[in-house]
Amino acid sequence: MTVQTPLSDIRFDRDSNDADFDAAFIAVEIQRLMDEKRDDEVREFVSAQELADVAALIEELPEDVDLQVMRLLTLHDQAELLGYLRPSSQIAIAHCIPRRELVALMTAMSHDERADLYKQLNEEAQEAILPAFAKAEREDLRRLAAYEEWTVGSVMTSDYATLAPDLTSTKAIEALRAQAIDAETIYYAYIIDDDRKLIGVVSLRDLLVARPSQRVSEVMDTEPVWIRADDEQEDAAKLIARYDLLALPVLDNNDRLVGIVTADDAMDVTEEEVTEDFYKGAIVQPIEMSLAEATIATLYKARIFWLVLLVFGNIFSGAGIAYFEDTIAAHLALLFFLPLLIASGGNAGTQSATLMVRALATGDVRPADFGRLLSREVVVALTLGVTMAVAVSTIGVWRGGPEIALVVALAMISIVLMGALIGMCLPFIFAKFDRDPAAASGPLVTSIADVLGVLIYFSIAAQLLGL
Amino acid sequence: MTVQTPLSDIRFDRDSNDADFDAAFIAVEIQRLMDEKRDDEVREFVSAQELADVAALIEELPEDVDLQVMRLLTLHDQAELLGYLRPSSQIAIAHCIPRRELVALMTAMSHDERADLYKQLNEEAQEAILPAFAKAEREDLRRLAAYEEWTVGSVMTSDYATLAPDLTSTKAIEALRAQAIDAETIYYAYIIDDDRKLIGVVSLRDLLVARPSQRVSEVMDTEPVWIRADDEQEDAAKLIARYDLLALPVLDNNDRLVGIVTADDAMDVTEEEVTEDFYKGAIVQPIEMSLAEATIATLYKARIFWLVLLVFGNIFSGAGIAYFEDTIAAHLALLFFLPLLIASGGNAGTQSATLMVRALATGDVRPADFGRLLSREVVVALTLGVTMAVAVSTIGVWRGGPEIALVVALAMISIVLMGALIGMCLPFIFAKFDRDPAAASGPLVTSIADVLGVLIYFSIAAQLLGL
Repeated sequence: MTVQTPLSDIRFDRDSNDADFDAAFIAVEIQRLMDEKRDDEVREFVSAQELADVAALIEELPEDVDLQVMRLLTLHDQAELLGYLRPSSQIAIAHCIPRRELVALMTAMSHDERADLYKQLNEEAQEAILPAFAKAEREDLRRLAAYEEWTVGSVMTSDYATLAPDLTSTKAIEALRAQAIDAETIYYAYIIDDDRKLIGVVSLRDLLVARPSQRVSEVMDTEPVWIRADDEQEDAAKLIARYDLLALPVLDNNDRLVGIVTADDAMDVTEEEVTEDFYKGAIVQPIEMSLAEATIATLYKARIFWLVLLVFGNIFSGAGIAYFEDTIAAHLALLFFLPLLIASGGNAGTQSATLMVRALATGDVRPADFGRLLSREVVVALTLGVTMAVAVSTIGVWRGGPEIALVVALAMISIVLMGALIGMCLPFIFAKFDRDPAAASGPLVTSIADVLGVLIYFSIAAQLLGL
Repeated sequence: MTVQTPLSDIRFDRDSNDADFDAAFIAVEIQRLMDEKRDDEVREFVSAQELADVAALIEELPEDVDLQVMRLLTLHDQAELLGYLRPSSQIAIAHCIPRRELVALMTAMSHDERADLYKQLNEEAQEAILPAFAKAEREDLRRLAAYEEWTVGSVMTSDYATLAPDLTSTKAIEALRAQAIDAETIYYAYIIDDDRKLIGVVSLRDLLVARPSQRVSEVMDTEPVWIRADDEQEDAAKLIARYDLLALPVLDNNDRLVGIVTADDAMDVTEEEVTEDFYKGAIVQPIEMSLAEATIATLYKARIFWLVLLVFGNIFSGAGIAYFEDTIAAHLALLFFLPLLIASGGNAGTQSATLMVRALATGDVRPADFGRLLSREVVVALTLGVTMAVAVSTIGVWRGGPEIALVVALAMISIVLMGALIGMCLPFIFAKFDRDPAAASGPLVTSIADVLGVLIYFSIAAQLLGL
């Protein structure tokens, strides 16, 4: 006997953050109910859930059923739900519902999300739906979709709230009430002149606190933080975080207000940028999609370039070893210590590089701090190197006698210092030449440290062992 | 002749996000004006700036002057400003202003920020100020300061807005207006029963849109997303991002509302967690402070453990080489290819590990996806390995003849496949045993791949070259 969980007993388990797991489980139940035409129960269930959870559920349902379940919601909820779905799911749904329905849905979506969806439709679909939109919608869609991927314009939305400067705070709140259905947020309102130039920002909180007769122009912030539509989206996210904003106004090159970036979109941008930094740190080029959905070709292309490039870098290490072949042939015991010395230089370098890359990315450290940090790094690296030299020299005595032990200890200190300095300097050098410091990845630092490590080790050996 | 920039012409250059740089420049100017007792000009300047920018400026000013400049602001602005300063600067200021002034300042601060500051004061200072607070403030301070560092309780604030369920929407908005001065946000209000149990959440937007006579209980969301005070702070940030919330209610184990986590605090938590993941990826243990301010001892402690541990791991690589000493002595040309083969395994492994760690952290990939991803990874790794084998085999022919080339090519394919599989599996294994997948760092993966790489390479060589 199978124990049946009635749908009403199922709750997304938020405590454990395993909503996705539950979604898979619930999807099976939902599908059964849909098969049995018990639509009303499903409607009741999904209507009571957060839309982000319903989206997770929709992702788990087979094609056709997902659409049936989606259609149980109100148009407004469907439009919002669509924004929570993965791009690939949005496109799949958009391509299989009738044009009329798609246009109605997209009209109800928030302006930035519908522009994102529109951009990803195939040309045929784009041409089919565009004439069906109202003129204002069509122009808005075209304009938002025209911004390049990495710009502020590509993440901003045009459904912001505006107020006239001469309204009283009471009238202004009335005006916001009227805009509440369409606007992405009414907690900030933007005050523009006849030329659409931004002249101020006011928060709903300030309007509430103001005396009823006070005018918007008396309460508004006349020097708000703003950004340009063709600036980098990352900068918008940084400003929102720095000034703790709920939304950031976006101006075109003529200072006209063209949109806002909201805090939740800024969080998405930050997550994307952080992922890119992680990838760079592991010599993986950016992937423009979810890893779960990436194809073999995409992954191959993202990984092969640096792998092959670093192979050729490592030829220098090989050449270094070949150059010292006589020393090695005379003291084969030296080979035992080669991997641990080389690896230690790379590991210390990876540590330093990562510390610096992250600190530069968060603004914790500025390029101007270089000098002060360098002297600290030298001291840290020397103490690390000495500790590790002590640790390995005992094995050195045991494996090859006191002479080898001395060579290994001296090489360890030099190699750790060298690795740490490369790891620390490379991000600053990249920043200096206007490259992303994150490109100073662990593998790159390790490759450089490898070559120099081989040379340092065998040079010391050749010197001290008298060859 | 030096060109003097009048202070009124200086604006923080937001376009380039170089506010910190400007702050250093402006600080010099401010200091000159303060020396000349031109306080009014400085007051006018700082009052017109965003507080986040004034904080950057304060950080650049020498002790004493920073305090003088701060005191030019209103108490309310001073309190908010304090929250923008680095912890070390907050403490420095708190320790040098009179007790009375400090208590007034902290009373005006937001509840979470003042609890953070209080926790970092030395015991003497804590005991000196605590009795000076009003009873409610004192208890709130003690309670918030008691939560452990990593918990939701440690980042939540207790100055949230509450509403009675039977208020009409008009009366509710009135009530929020009255709470606007003290509450961290009034855009969400929480509805609690006599026992302080959370029975609903309502947004100011919903209250505005509601009919004037509609009651809070009719408009509120009765099943809001919430979290426990002793859950991990990271989970609060994840819920806020998942459900696009401005704030998340926090309950104690008796379901009583004890605080809220706001979206901007969630962003700070996410940034901390991301930094920790970056550090783990480079075998650096978490540092509980800004890198710019970390001492040599802190950095040493954060780095030495894994460095030494991996040295001992690499002894196995050395032992592997020592084991194959005869093969190597007979074919010293093999050594030329050792670094590039070993490095390639580590590099491919670092790529796979980073892709998986990040995808698991963002929820893009779930542990349940392992099987599907594994087969994809095998195909990707094989194609990568073959490409690299082709690239190096030409050098193999040139350096050591066709036999060596064959050994190198076969070793390359095997080592890249092995490295990629270790990099992919390790994060999943860590997740399986409830460890943070981020601990499957590049250096750890590289160390394991190094040992196996040595064994694979020389085993193939011994086999094919007949030793």
